[in-house]
Amino acid sequence: MVRLFVHPAIEQVTLEGVLYALADPARLEIVKRLAGETCGLNCSAAAPVDLPKSTQSHHFRILREAGLVRSERRGTEVVNELRCGEIEKRFPGVVSAILKASEKAKRR
Amino acid sequence: MVRLFVHPAIEQVTLEGVLYALADPARLEIVKRLAGETCGLNCSAAAPVDLPKSTQSHHFRILREAGLVRSERRGTEVVNELRCGEIEKRFPGVVSAILKASEKAKRR
Repeated sequence: MVRLFVHPAIEQVTLEGVLYALADPARLEIVKRLAGETCGLNCSAAAPVDLPKSTQSHHFRILREAGLVRSERRGTEVVNELRCGEIEKRFPGVVSAILKASEKAKRR
Repeated sequence: MVRLFVHPAIEQVTLEGVLYALADPARLEIVKRLAGETCGLNCSAAAPVDLPKSTQSHHFRILREAGLVRSERRGTEVVNELRCGEIEKRFPGVVSAILKASEKAKRR
């Protein structure tokens, strides 16, 4: 049996959970890559290249539980999308400010 | 001997560290209270009332290490200030968006 992904309703998503999920360089990188896409990315395209599969799964689970990412099985692969619109409505400006600051920090 | 507080230089402050420090309801509350003050607050005025002293100290240490708070001994008390200007310059819009979203979430 294929295990289904569980996603919190947006009303259950907490600011603390979002911040915790983004307080990790690998997860922040995943979110940045997803933010650049409109139609989702499979896990290996979204995750930093040097991450083992099990670590990728762990990070995607935390991102899903925090309400940042929606994952969906399409055939044999899993496609991940950022829940941009919902998150932006719930916590205006937070994720976009974090992604922008992270880009700026990288250029230093 | 009185132990001195250690504060990272602003160039050493990381976005991940800031997010981790704010991903806790008590620390977010402390930062919110400090953000409302221009001349600093002592620990008990800044921390949620029901926190034991040792837990307060733990949270202030994490906030200092993350670069968010500067603590200074003045006589017998410790006065804490948010490093607003420096943090805003390093990570524009991040802390202010988080504080605003947190206020909005509280009103729901």
